[in-house]
This record gives sequence, C-alpha cells and structure tokens, in this order.
Amino acid sequence: MNRVSLFFLLSLALGLARAETDVEFSARARALHERIIALDTHLDTPANFSRPGWDIMDRHTYETDRSQVDYPRMVEGGLDGGFWAIFTAQGPRTPEGLAAARDKALIRAVEIREMVAKHSDKFELAFTSDDAARIHAAGKRIVYQSIENAYPIGKDISLVQTFYTLGVRMMSPAHTSNSDLADSATDANGPEWHGLSPLGKEFVAECNRLGIILDASHSADSVFDQMLELSKTPLILSHSGPKGANNHPRNIDDERIKKLAAKGGVIQINSLSAYLIPQPVIPERNAALAQLYAKFGLPAPQARAPGVPVGGAGRGGRGGRGGDMSAEQRDAFMKEMAELDKKYPVPQATFEDFMRHVNYALKLVGPEHVGFGADWDGGGGVEGMRDITGYPKVTERLLKEGYSEQDVANMWGGNVIRLLKAAEDYAKSQKKA
Amino acid sequence: MNRVSLFFLLSLALGLARAETDVEFSARARALHERIIALDTHLDTPANFSRPGWDIMDRHTYETDRSQVDYPRMVEGGLDGGFWAIFTAQGPRTPEGLAAARDKALIRAVEIREMVAKHSDKFELAFTSDDAARIHAAGKRIVYQSIENAYPIGKDISLVQTFYTLGVRMMSPAHTSNSDLADSATDANGPEWHGLSPLGKEFVAECNRLGIILDASHSADSVFDQMLELSKTPLILSHSGPKGANNHPRNIDDERIKKLAAKGGVIQINSLSAYLIPQPVIPERNAALAQLYAKFGLPAPQARAPGVPVGGAGRGGRGGRGGDMSAEQRDAFMKEMAELDKKYPVPQATFEDFMRHVNYALKLVGPEHVGFGADWDGGGGVEGMRDITGYPKVTERLLKEGYSEQDVANMWGGNVIRLLKAAEDYAKSQKKA
Repeated sequence: MNRVSLFFLLSLALGLARAETDVEFSARARALHERIIALDTHLDTPANFSRPGWDIMDRHTYETDRSQVDYPRMVEGGLDGGFWAIFTAQGPRTPEGLAAARDKALIRAVEIREMVAKHSDKFELAFTSDDAARIHAAGKRIVYQSIENAYPIGKDISLVQTFYTLGVRMMSPAHTSNSDLADSATDANGPEWHGLSPLGKEFVAECNRLGIILDASHSADSVFDQMLELSKTPLILSHSGPKGANNHPRNIDDERIKKLAAKGGVIQINSLSAYLIPQPVIPERNAALAQLYAKFGLPAPQARAPGVPVGGAGRGGRGGRGGDMSAEQRDAFMKEMAELDKKYPVPQATFEDFMRHVNYALKLVGPEHVGFGADWDGGGGVEGMRDITGYPKVTERLLKEGYSEQDVANMWGGNVIRLLKAAEDYAKSQKKA
Repeated sequence: MNRVSLFFLLSLALGLARAETDVEFSARARALHERIIALDTHLDTPANFSRPGWDIMDRHTYETDRSQVDYPRMVEGGLDGGFWAIFTAQGPRTPEGLAAARDKALIRAVEIREMVAKHSDKFELAFTSDDAARIHAAGKRIVYQSIENAYPIGKDISLVQTFYTLGVRMMSPAHTSNSDLADSATDANGPEWHGLSPLGKEFVAECNRLGIILDASHSADSVFDQMLELSKTPLILSHSGPKGANNHPRNIDDERIKKLAAKGGVIQINSLSAYLIPQPVIPERNAALAQLYAKFGLPAPQARAPGVPVGGAGRGGRGGRGGDMSAEQRDAFMKEMAELDKKYPVPQATFEDFMRHVNYALKLVGPEHVGFGADWDGGGGVEGMRDITGYPKVTERLLKEGYSEQDVANMWGGNVIRLLKAAEDYAKSQKKA
C-alpha cells in the first residue's frame, strides 16, 4: 500500500464519514476563494494614490482613514485585482471644462501606471482577457483600468483610443449628471438626449471597434436600452443593483437585467447603502452636508451613505480640492462628518442587504450573469463588510447557498473576463474584415 | 595650534609650493564635476525604455547596443540628469496622424514617469527650477521632461497644458520637417510658414503662460527670429551648434547666437557628427541606407552620423516599427549597418571637434550662454566620447582653458535652471496680474 492510499483510507476513517464541520467548511471556502481569480469591477482606489502620505503597501483601516483597498487588505480579503477606475466628476461642458477633464483623467491613468511600476513585484497591468490568469499565476495583483464617466473624452472620439492605448478596457458614458455622450440615471434636470447623444452612439461604436467593454452603470435606462441594442458585444453594469431589491434610480429593473443576461452581459452588485436600502431624505442633513463640503472647498455632495465623505474617502479630492487636503484638514473633515452622521443619522445597509441584492440578481439570471463591483473607495461598504477584507464571507455564503465552485469562479472573475474576451474577439474580427 | 592650522601648514609645505600634478588636476576637475549639478538638455534615452530587455539600471556599452545613457553610466560620467525628451517624428498632418502623434507622445511621457516610479530611489521627476538642487542633494538623478517636435499638440493648443501637467518644461515646435506650428531648418521642400504659423504663435504664448522654456533647435532661422521676438522669456537651443564652427543648416550663425544671449538665452552644444564637421554626400550610401531601413520596416533615414542607426540606437523605433524589433532583428540591423558604414565610410567627428564647437560659442557669448545638449541616444556621440562616460573630460578641459568653477557650474546646469526660473517667474507674474 503506498502512502497516498494510506492517507486516503485514514482520511476516510477519521473524517469523511461524518459531516463537514463549520471550521472545515470555512477553510474549504477560503481555499476556493484563494484558488479562483477574484476581481472587483469598480475600484475607486486610484483616487487615493495622490493622497499625501497614503501608500497602497500600508495596511490602513476604514475606521481611521475611510479607505477600503490596499495591498495588505487585498491579500487578507483574497482580492486578486479588478478594474481600477479613472473617475472624473461631471463638470462644465465648456472647451475649458472638457480639456481639464481630459487632463485630470490622463493624470489619473498615469498615477495608476506609476503605482504598478513602483510595485511591479506585487501588481501588474492587464490589457487582455488572457492577462488575468497569467498575472494571477505569477502571484501578482491584476490591474485592469476603466473609465467611469467618459466626460474626459469630451467631443473628441479619438481620445477613446488614447485611453485604450494607456490600457483602459471598460468605459461608461456618464456619471451622476448628463454628459455630452449620454443621459445619467440621476440628473436632477432629467433627460437631455433621451438616451445616447449622436456622439454617444459614435462612442459605443468606437469602444466596440477597439475592444472596450461598455459599462451602463450610472447611465439612464434609455442609455442602457440603446447601448444594449447598438453594442456588438455584451454590456456590463460594473457597479449596480436590482430595482427589485431596492427601488432606486441607480438600480435596474428585472426586465432589463434579463435582457442584459440574454445578450451575455453581467450585473456586478454594488454595496453602497443608499442604493441597497431605502434611506429617508433629511433636508437638515443635506443642508448641513452642503455647508460642510463648502467649508472644506469640496464640490457639492450627492446623496451618499452616511460616514462616507464625498463618495468615499478617496473621492474627496476628485473634481475638487479634496485631493490637496492635508492630513490635518482631512482629519478635521472626517471628525465633523462623524458628528454630522451622529446628529442626523440615516439607516445603514448591512452585509445581509448586500447578499439580498446578490441573491435577487442570481435568482433572476443565474451565476453567469452576476458578479461584484462594490464601489470600494467610491462610497461602497456595508455594516459587516466595510472593506475588501470582508470578501471571503461572500464566497462562503455562495457555497452555503449551493452554488458550485465553477459558479463562484464565474461570479468572481470568469464572467467579466468572458466579456473582455468577447470585446477583444469582436475588435479582432473587424480588423480582419 | 589647532589641527586645521597644522594641516594647512603641512599642506603648504608639502604640496602647494610646487605646481599641481596632472593627477591632482584631474582629481580636482572630477571633484568639481561631482559637486555641481550636471544636466544635459537633450536626452533621447526615453526611446529606449520600451526596448525589449533594455533596463536603465543595467550597464550597457555603445559598442554592443549603441545606447549612450543608463544609470551606471550616469554615475560614471557624473551626469546628474537633464531634460528627457518626448520625441515624435514628424508624420502626416491629417486628423489621424495628429491623434496618433498625440497618443505616442502621451505613452512616451508615461514611460518616463513609469521609469522614475520604478526606480524612485535613484531618479526623481523635476517640475520646478528648485527641484534640481533638491533632487541632487538627495543623491538622485534629475528627470525634467521636454517635447522635441510639438507635432503631438496637433491643432489643439490646450494639449500644451496637458503635457505641462504631465511635467514637460521645455518644448520645440518642429523637428526635421515643417509642422503645423513652424518651419523646420531642414525641410526638403523649404519654408511653408516663413517662420511660425498662426497656431505656432499661439503655441509660443501658451508656453510663456504656463512656464515652459521654448526650444528653437531644429526650427528654421525665421522661427528662431520670431520666437526670440515673441517669447517673454529667454529661448534655448537645446541641442545645436554654431554655424561658424561648421556651416550646416541645423547650426546657427553668430549674429543669432549673440541675439539669443543678449536676451538671456543659451545654446547647448550638440555632438552629432553630421552637424560638427562637413560630411560629403555619398548618393550610393544614401541609397543603401534607404534600402536597409525599408528592409527593417523603419521610416526613411535622414543624414546621420555613420554607425548611428535611425538617429541613434533608441530612435530605431520612433515613428516606425523599430521599437517592436526583437533583439535578434536589432542585432541583424546593427550588423548590416556596420557593413554599410565600412563600405561607404564618412568622416566621423571627434572629441576635439565637439570642444571646438563649445569653445567657438564660449568665445562668442561667454559661459552664461553655453551648455551641453549632446543628443545622446538621438544621434550624438563622437570619437573619444561615445557616451556620457566621456563628460568628465569636458569639465577638465574647461578648467584647463581657464574657466572658473562658477563658469563651469553655469554651463553644466546653472544656465538652463536660470531659464526655467525665468519661465516660471513670468508664468507666476501673469497669474497675479
């Protein structure tokens, strides 16, 4: 009898006859979580790269600086990488505004690439669908780039290729206000284009031509409908939720989720409290927020989860002077923010709310069309999962609910890599034609 | 008597009474060279950053790979840094051509910044005139960025600010052919704008507004004249030579050098053989060159020093497919190039020719208006100084010729830093106004 057979028999005798213990189950879930490629499709973390004194190699805590992603926590949370966002807050659509947005986005792309260059033993830029597996096998973290709000493209479609050349492989046409390309789901002034603008349609075609995944998160339903019709490759909702789980304009209805899936697309579940659960509008809170933001020279706030300044700790600087805040100013801001939250509390979503959204989408379209884009460092995070170290719990829960290891692997990375492959294949097919 | 006084008396007794030996002189020159901030204002080295397998931290030799600058040789040659060029070969002035040039220049800027991020213990980006001394004191190499040929700006003046934001602090409007901004000194079809185009005049004003040094190297004399008149701050010729030392259209006449100096500007001496000495035109050589370049998919060659493929080893890829050449292809190309040089030899400039140009300019306008921009990795290098390790000889020679330590320090860095300070000060004064 060889040693392997002996081990097998002993295992059988000692353990397999009885049910798996909780500890064993957790260990098996964690092992799976480590084995698969775990990607989050909306990391706002690059906004932190220019924060004075903030280093991705340090272990931070949400409690002390509101950040949610760094290298030590990626290791702890078993997050292998994702799409690191080049976010630009919507600003004036003047020539000056467009030029400034373009430059800001270019600098953000440079900061992402500098971070990777500086820590090239730990991170690697990913450009193709094959890169994820290769980088994962090399023991490094995966850095795909995405654009949240194509405002920096301005009226110059050729800039889509510029950002593609820099490595961007996912783009959304708008953010919380209408852009030159598309209507937002949440513009206070309502629709402007009733979907995509003529330039927005060119944008869709250009993304298809180059091999960029189109992202409908933040866009109006009309934009989703038109992109779904026009795009030659499946869409993503990089950080969204089902309206059926919470009726918010940033979430999407069942019919549209089904159409998305029918065309091969995926919805990546967000963890932002305001989208996960109903939150009352408290005019006094909003007025106090506006006052606080103005005091620190930040752009006007949007409805956000409590405790999360300006759409996430990192986002403080985006579009405003927040990025230039000293550590002292930031501390002062955080302190006043905490007081404001205490004075005007709003309900906070929990890990269970997040899983409720995940499960709602899973029941609707299945594990080949659902994944995770929790808006870390951009306003995401719930009670019980305040940063990425909570991610292994998601895998554990999915296994517990009966999803197979393959299902779980698809949700964590397989689906979005399939979308990138489809975008690449279409682009290649056009080059040949 | 304290120890210092004793040492002084002993020194006097033992050494100072007799003449300095050659070894002592060399040591003193080297010590000076180490003490001052030595900058070269035209390093084409960034073109090597994307060469497969090429690493700036390795010690290369000119003989094996034609490169002339890397970190070990910067230490050996006492070169503290300089202006690292974002070079773009002039191409089609179509919308597609302009967009491609813009993207190529952006990627080159990113490659420079990635190099610095990767080796942040050895290199640091410089943005202001103060940065040079600070970085030098920290024991790191200084990386200012420059644009050679503003072709990537295209017709969009707002891109000047984009590159400024990325760190560019010196720009020239044209290269070897006319651009949308200005006439070249060497366009085969002669003048197009008779100086600056209307857009070129906007370009000058925008560089002034932002605090960018204007560089007239490669531009036609008419452009030099107009820039000298229009610019609110002193001009640089980042890599040029005096016509009085060799009558070549890329060199500049005495009157213009004097006018440049009268307005506070500087001429930085080039070391490219074809500009330093008369070289016969050999039609058979040029035909063979064109054939060789076409064979390797490179853009058409210009008149260049023998042994220097496509304007320097690094430049092989610029504007063509050379950058994608494998190490094997590059070796094959170099071998055929060496055979061609052997078959159709042209005279090569020497270190003495380089110093003849330096001294000519010095006699004309003095050490506050002369410096070094030897076009390393862009076609520069002479017999006796094939790479930057030869630079200490220049300092030694200048001392020997009677220039003071302050003169030498000005030539090596003080002058160009003075120009950057003037550009900054003007930009600041405009912001206040």
